[in-house]
Amino acid sequence: MFKLNENYLKLPGSYLFSTIGKKVSAYSAAHPDKKIIRLGIGDVTQPLAPAIIEALHRAVDEMGHAETFHGYAPDLGYDFLRNAIAENDYKARGCDISPDEIFVSDGAKCDSSNIQEIFGLDNKIAVCDPVYPVYVDSNVMAGRTGTYDRNTETWSDVIYMPCTAANGFAPELPKETPDLIYLCFPNNPTGAAVTKEQLQEWVDYANKNGSVIIYDAAYEAYISEADVPHSIYECQGARECAIELRSFSKNAGFTGVRLGFTVIPKELKCGEVALHGLWARRHGTKYNGAPYIVQRAGEAVYSEAGKEQLKEQVAYYMNNASYIYNGLKEAGFTVSGGVNAPYIWLQTPKGMTSWEFFDYLLENVNVVGTPGSGFGPSGEGYFRLTAFGSYENTVEAVDRIKGIRL
Amino acid sequence: MFKLNENYLKLPGSYLFSTIGKKVSAYSAAHPDKKIIRLGIGDVTQPLAPAIIEALHRAVDEMGHAETFHGYAPDLGYDFLRNAIAENDYKARGCDISPDEIFVSDGAKCDSSNIQEIFGLDNKIAVCDPVYPVYVDSNVMAGRTGTYDRNTETWSDVIYMPCTAANGFAPELPKETPDLIYLCFPNNPTGAAVTKEQLQEWVDYANKNGSVIIYDAAYEAYISEADVPHSIYECQGARECAIELRSFSKNAGFTGVRLGFTVIPKELKCGEVALHGLWARRHGTKYNGAPYIVQRAGEAVYSEAGKEQLKEQVAYYMNNASYIYNGLKEAGFTVSGGVNAPYIWLQTPKGMTSWEFFDYLLENVNVVGTPGSGFGPSGEGYFRLTAFGSYENTVEAVDRIKGIRL
Repeated sequence: MFKLNENYLKLPGSYLFSTIGKKVSAYSAAHPDKKIIRLGIGDVTQPLAPAIIEALHRAVDEMGHAETFHGYAPDLGYDFLRNAIAENDYKARGCDISPDEIFVSDGAKCDSSNIQEIFGLDNKIAVCDPVYPVYVDSNVMAGRTGTYDRNTETWSDVIYMPCTAANGFAPELPKETPDLIYLCFPNNPTGAAVTKEQLQEWVDYANKNGSVIIYDAAYEAYISEADVPHSIYECQGARECAIELRSFSKNAGFTGVRLGFTVIPKELKCGEVALHGLWARRHGTKYNGAPYIVQRAGEAVYSEAGKEQLKEQVAYYMNNASYIYNGLKEAGFTVSGGVNAPYIWLQTPKGMTSWEFFDYLLENVNVVGTPGSGFGPSGEGYFRLTAFGSYENTVEAVDRIKGIRL
Repeated sequence: MFKLNENYLKLPGSYLFSTIGKKVSAYSAAHPDKKIIRLGIGDVTQPLAPAIIEALHRAVDEMGHAETFHGYAPDLGYDFLRNAIAENDYKARGCDISPDEIFVSDGAKCDSSNIQEIFGLDNKIAVCDPVYPVYVDSNVMAGRTGTYDRNTETWSDVIYMPCTAANGFAPELPKETPDLIYLCFPNNPTGAAVTKEQLQEWVDYANKNGSVIIYDAAYEAYISEADVPHSIYECQGARECAIELRSFSKNAGFTGVRLGFTVIPKELKCGEVALHGLWARRHGTKYNGAPYIVQRAGEAVYSEAGKEQLKEQVAYYMNNASYIYNGLKEAGFTVSGGVNAPYIWLQTPKGMTSWEFFDYLLENVNVVGTPGSGFGPSGEGYFRLTAFGSYENTVEAVDRIKGIRL
């Protein structure tokens, strides 16, 4: 008789955003007349920029003629895209990353959940608390996290690094040494950023202790302050210890287009074995490349017109972020984030739990956010709002929240 | 110090098609004047059908306007596509599969390598020999296959089911009972098919022994004979024991577009736990949906115009298959496949090994095929040619092969 992967059965509840989706659907079905504003899941709302639409149409036309048709893509991505990434995201920022260290994929969610596969099951992971749930859940599924304690909502074999108001939502170096350290800056969900100096401490720590940093830089396009690094490779020694994950979802609105990439420098080794080769083998065996038309759309992100248009798109969302941040602050909420990130992290009022506040907002003012506790125990008492709505909806949502009388 | 997934280091050599790609590149670089014809990797060459191109353009236009923009797709696929699949691929063939048992993905390669994840590491797999390498390699990476013997080119904990001329390239029921049985019909690489009666035996065997069949039906569009089933769900009892993998790569030329799906019926359970829920959890946690525009392209495959155009496309490739089959047979080769599949499986002449014949053809007539031994030990002495080239190239390749004097 066949056997299940029992690790799946250890997962508590369902994936956070599925749960939110179901709650909203149920409320919506019961109250079809209510206009719900969703500032919960980090999904964008602005259309793709014209330069990207043009590139997509051109690539679609190519697919309609035998001479320009494209079948299977190269395992690791087309050179035209890998070159554009290396040039614009790395060389232009003084980072030494070559095109063949870039692995094109269908998004950072897949990469951040798959990357653990190339490591042994006996590695200990460290995560920020609160944290994007995928890092932990993918390790649970692999059997790397021990047992779950329903009271503390933590796993026995995971090192949690609390990110709280006390430390400015930037974790301290852990007491117990982890093998794999997941970091995400600018942070999801707190919206916090770290300076280059702070990040350098992590790189030094990893190199000293033989740890690998899995650095999720999906939100780098939202950085507005000069001393905040866009890539971990701005730090000395990162090529020896860091993997970087990037996404086109937030800087170019590709949540429904699906494109991302992972960088693994060739110096990153365990003994003589380069992780680069292992990830290449995984890509070659278990993945078949991002669609040609999508890779062409990715290339257009780096065109002159694309850059110009996307700068405006990011500015549009950051204007929303300021509106939320300032509006809620004026109304007496305790808020953070929103300066280098499209997320605003607010303390729930009157000691409500995160889910109580979620239900309260959904039912009373029809605004959907994300309960902080869904990201980990230190997220309890917090709530995430995203700046990815339309400006009109963002203004209306903030006005509605300002109007609540608890 | 972090630790690697040591299972990766057990993998012998690189992924088959990467090796072929490198050999061909090297030859090509050394002989830039030679016109190489590639009938190796199963990549299509015909452009996307007009109905699909139109659907893609329409969807791209939608992505360019806020009112019709699509962000994150539903975890398991858009209803419009899942409904079209259920209606056309299942209901129309008398199979009882509902839309919510269909999981849309970016292709059968990913699904066939990821599906093992929801099973425990203590399951024993059975595969045909020769076999599509991904089934075995993904299980090697997970640590389910034991040790590799370089002499026999087999894994200690894998049950191999030889497919040879003696059994018409259809495996016999294994003596040792497997937990997971990978079957692919019409078969890659041999091009062999099984009748509904033969497949029913496998379903009965799996239900009797508590095994799960992972049925790869990526080539079902090429079936020409009436008694060959298009889906395993045409068999009685398959809802209790079978997962089916499907692809849009070969029936619609989506190798560079990336779309596929997996079917898991709700009755398929281990004790009280439905595999459907586990796979849904995996999709929700580790995947973010196929691109909207690609799912719209998939929908167009089932439109009246799409069906008509793709029938012609499949006929075009099957005409190539006949040409290869008949041409090589006339020239004295021993050939099979090519009737219900786009692959022709030929015996290498004069006792050459598969790789010797590969090198011989590449160097002497500049034709690329796939060495049978790359698919497993019973593939030694065989060679795979695909019908996915253009008609002109196919004719030229066959004429070149006919001209060799060994």
